[in-house]
Amino acid sequence: MKSYRVVFAPSFKEIITDEGKTVLDAAREAGVYIDSQCNGKGKCGKCRIRVIEGKVSPFTSEETEFIRQLDRALGYRLACMTLITGDIIVFVPGENILNAEAAKKVFSKRSNVVNPAVKSYTIDLSSEEGGARHAYFEGITRILIEKYGAGDSTCNLATLQNLADIVKGGEDRVTVFVWMDREIIAVQPGWNETCLGLALDVGTTTVALYLCDLKNGDVIASGSITNPQILFGADIMSRISYSVNHPGQGVKKMQGELINSVNTLIDQMAVGNGFSPQQIVDMTVVGNTVMHHIFLGIAPDHLGLWPFTPSIQGSVDVKVRELGILINPSAYVHVLPVEAGFVGADNVGVLLSEEPYNQDELSLTIDLGTNGEIVLGNRETLLCCSCATGPAFEGAQISCGMRATVGAIEKVRINTATFKVDYAVVGTEGWASEHSPGDLKPVGICGSGIIDTFAHLFKTGIIGEDGAFSENLHTPRLRKGQSDVMEFVLAWEHETATGNDIVFTQRDIRQIQLAKGALHGGCRVLMDHLKVTYINRMSIAGAFGMHIDKENALTIGLFPWCDPENITMVGNAAGHGAYLTLVDREKRTEADRITGMVTHIELALEEGFQKEFMKALSIPYKSD
Amino acid sequence: MKSYRVVFAPSFKEIITDEGKTVLDAAREAGVYIDSQCNGKGKCGKCRIRVIEGKVSPFTSEETEFIRQLDRALGYRLACMTLITGDIIVFVPGENILNAEAAKKVFSKRSNVVNPAVKSYTIDLSSEEGGARHAYFEGITRILIEKYGAGDSTCNLATLQNLADIVKGGEDRVTVFVWMDREIIAVQPGWNETCLGLALDVGTTTVALYLCDLKNGDVIASGSITNPQILFGADIMSRISYSVNHPGQGVKKMQGELINSVNTLIDQMAVGNGFSPQQIVDMTVVGNTVMHHIFLGIAPDHLGLWPFTPSIQGSVDVKVRELGILINPSAYVHVLPVEAGFVGADNVGVLLSEEPYNQDELSLTIDLGTNGEIVLGNRETLLCCSCATGPAFEGAQISCGMRATVGAIEKVRINTATFKVDYAVVGTEGWASEHSPGDLKPVGICGSGIIDTFAHLFKTGIIGEDGAFSENLHTPRLRKGQSDVMEFVLAWEHETATGNDIVFTQRDIRQIQLAKGALHGGCRVLMDHLKVTYINRMSIAGAFGMHIDKENALTIGLFPWCDPENITMVGNAAGHGAYLTLVDREKRTEADRITGMVTHIELALEEGFQKEFMKALSIPYKSD
Repeated sequence: MKSYRVVFAPSFKEIITDEGKTVLDAAREAGVYIDSQCNGKGKCGKCRIRVIEGKVSPFTSEETEFIRQLDRALGYRLACMTLITGDIIVFVPGENILNAEAAKKVFSKRSNVVNPAVKSYTIDLSSEEGGARHAYFEGITRILIEKYGAGDSTCNLATLQNLADIVKGGEDRVTVFVWMDREIIAVQPGWNETCLGLALDVGTTTVALYLCDLKNGDVIASGSITNPQILFGADIMSRISYSVNHPGQGVKKMQGELINSVNTLIDQMAVGNGFSPQQIVDMTVVGNTVMHHIFLGIAPDHLGLWPFTPSIQGSVDVKVRELGILINPSAYVHVLPVEAGFVGADNVGVLLSEEPYNQDELSLTIDLGTNGEIVLGNRETLLCCSCATGPAFEGAQISCGMRATVGAIEKVRINTATFKVDYAVVGTEGWASEHSPGDLKPVGICGSGIIDTFAHLFKTGIIGEDGAFSENLHTPRLRKGQSDVMEFVLAWEHETATGNDIVFTQRDIRQIQLAKGALHGGCRVLMDHLKVTYINRMSIAGAFGMHIDKENALTIGLFPWCDPENITMVGNAAGHGAYLTLVDREKRTEADRITGMVTHIELALEEGFQKEFMKALSIPYKSD
Repeated sequence: MKSYRVVFAPSFKEIITDEGKTVLDAAREAGVYIDSQCNGKGKCGKCRIRVIEGKVSPFTSEETEFIRQLDRALGYRLACMTLITGDIIVFVPGENILNAEAAKKVFSKRSNVVNPAVKSYTIDLSSEEGGARHAYFEGITRILIEKYGAGDSTCNLATLQNLADIVKGGEDRVTVFVWMDREIIAVQPGWNETCLGLALDVGTTTVALYLCDLKNGDVIASGSITNPQILFGADIMSRISYSVNHPGQGVKKMQGELINSVNTLIDQMAVGNGFSPQQIVDMTVVGNTVMHHIFLGIAPDHLGLWPFTPSIQGSVDVKVRELGILINPSAYVHVLPVEAGFVGADNVGVLLSEEPYNQDELSLTIDLGTNGEIVLGNRETLLCCSCATGPAFEGAQISCGMRATVGAIEKVRINTATFKVDYAVVGTEGWASEHSPGDLKPVGICGSGIIDTFAHLFKTGIIGEDGAFSENLHTPRLRKGQSDVMEFVLAWEHETATGNDIVFTQRDIRQIQLAKGALHGGCRVLMDHLKVTYINRMSIAGAFGMHIDKENALTIGLFPWCDPENITMVGNAAGHGAYLTLVDREKRTEADRITGMVTHIELALEEGFQKEFMKALSIPYKSD
């Protein structure tokens, strides 16, 4: 029997396995988590993967039900139905769609105002009958103006081309969708005011999407996927390199991968909630400057070179069809403005969500993503900087790291005396010690679990101030692993879903040290600029930020010390900012205004940064 | 040897000819004029035709020089290099491009104001260097505002995507093209302010194009072609039928044929004058309502049914790339507003050109195209109507009719005593009688020649008041022709380029009677509305109108009597209107305003029309 190499992105874990095995089996062998509720019977459609390269068995009839024609062309398959017939590279999208109930609670703060950019109106043209009838378009605008007090509107070509048939098909009753009071973007036969919008947060590692009802501001569904651009590099600099090394085509390819994945997610979220993607008539987007540029198809090459000049800073409105996004093709996508260099539209989203510019008190807002973005300020002044923390907090580049999905160890505590490890797993309740053995099956460890582990390794003396594993400590959990690298076992193979030990290595510790050093150092530089040594109020944003233990974060010196009472975990504030601009168009104006207020500090040019970074590598922060 | 049937559009003349003959030879046999300056050697590229259907010999190396790849795919060939190998249908585009000198005189009136919608600016970004450098886009807009006093602009996506490379490629010197002071549609490296625009007049039968310099308002080149939609029917109603009978696809096909032909003409006009089509950054379009709808890809179906509701009346700005027009893809095309029913944007163009709305005196403006459009009015009131004259005045549906290109008989006089015919031919000077016999070779007869012929046949008593050929007149020129239809010979076969007699038949006379009856009747209905019986000032527009003999037109009663001194032939006023809106953006506002002033009279609903039409069938108009 032949053997083949199977590589799983985004973790790039690989395994040699026998011909004819399913991709799902190979993933389980390799310790890569793929959701499968029907346990490999092709019935649940959860184990969607994408074959990037190499030969597999032909498409099966079971798969036609779950994989759209469009996605099939892109290599999407069900892992349980796909047999390995050659060396392959497989991408595991890691989709995560919250149901309607959970989605409603996805943001702690709803928008108070519902004033979307796209509004729908019902119109009866039958009174227009007679020889003096207006043209169809002018008949509609006249009623919009007279009945609804709307402004003068233009009309896009696609709508015009079908207008006569739509009016006739709706027997003179039509529903009209108007963008920003100035363009009729869609006319539909009959009366149906359903008006949906999408808020998109493009992170370097994770892409989050919120489907909203523009009539009341409700979040109908929320979903997230791994950014498929991870195939071209885990961090921002490697994406820039890919673009530089593949002039013209590189950015198109990264843009295409992103848009395709987003389209798939949109389709699932819409159809899964009883809607058509055509009913989505507006969209807002946030993302760091590189993600912003790639999303728009702008090569980010110049963002990698001093003076890191973006192509555009202001907000951009562009037709979704120009980007290939499969919602109503006449809809616009509103891309929020970027600040400077790497501090992008995602940080503008965070500002809109947290509004430090409306407060007297100085506060520190930290957005923890693949880059850490920091804002220090109040209504007088706003300083910002970006720290290259890397994707470690999102579970990437950590040996057993994973996203915070089902199966991820999200909390860890280590007994000081016995070094016994207790943990909590996403998708289950309570600690492992409260369950029967083998009751919950962890797959890997996510960001909050990583912080806990790091803090407890330090508190229990397993690692020292410099992050090195203690040499005179004897527990079977501390051992030499692959390539003689020291590692600590969090969960033994019999406890895990993958059948492999879940470990935390010396290399993982170094990754976290570098990340927290950059972040803490960045905070200090901003504080030095305003000549403050202590911050009384702090907001931690980022999907992973929601779940971290403040005490443990302070223990490892992730950020400057602050009374835990005054630290608020605000979740995906960038996504929340995108949501706010979706349901309230005034927030778009506000975004443009505050972008002009922010002063960007380029850490690389700051003399003090290197010193602060070095000090912040130790545990906790070592002040002079 | 096999024989095949060759059909030539737009005349639909056909011939059975031997296998292996060239299309050029077959055309000469069939009496279809195809220009060939090198006389069939494949050297001049003038004999471009398009094979619509059927089998011909393979593409030759000679043709690669003259036929672009794009056109080759559409079936374009050189007639002299294409051998007949099956039954075929061939389209003769009848292209006609005036050289730069002639083009400058194409309009009698230049625009006084040069204030185009697209303006170009040269910008130096090098002063922008430094750490605090703006984003590229904002750097440009800041200079536009500070140096040129421009307004806040947005930027289209394609320009944004290449902006960084363009700025670097131009070493910080760029030329920026701004549309309507509000959108940057193009940025080019280096300083080159060349800024070209196109005015397009889409007639039912003829399409005219004017390439203009937007810096000074000059017409650089002027060209015209037969509207290829003629393949789908000669008049407006048959185009509507084609759309109705081919739902969805019909309009796309007619639109596509038009745009493809226009693209070919654009390319020839631009390249022939040393420019790239990419340098064309603005475009305006006029056409009757059906042409307007098809140009925009809107099915004209509802224009064929009472109450003849257009989809839109107001002007439309749309990106040329949405229509497939191959100029700078970020350019807009501005489509002028339509008035009502069949009175379209072409008539708005005529109004802009003639400005009856700025005069106290009542005047009658007649645009003679495939439809006759009439405006009666002054600054107080403007009445308009459209008459279904058919394409007879453009030479279509007349047995030996042709467009007013080289070889067309444009003037005719008949000796009252001898019935000898004298004529003048486009492309030569003076009358035939002043040349040696056989010196000029007519191909057919165009509109002005048709009017002359009709008038002289009446004046010489060859036809009576009712248009019937006299029965008791003996001249070899008057004879029974095909199917026993009476005909009058204008030129004998030995005089003509085709080797066939050029005749004017009883059926041709009926066509002209119907056309002039509709036109004259329409004028009368408008005059009755304003209770006037006499018009003191008249403008005759239309390319063919330029050349008609006023006295002869009055003789046949083409329009109500008016002192010939006060009748002005104004040429292609619709095209002139398109030109005016191209070089002076204020004319666009004016067009929107006057469209609202015009009252449309639907002749079909007017009780008096049928009576006036019947009276106007006789020669001259028979008043009660």
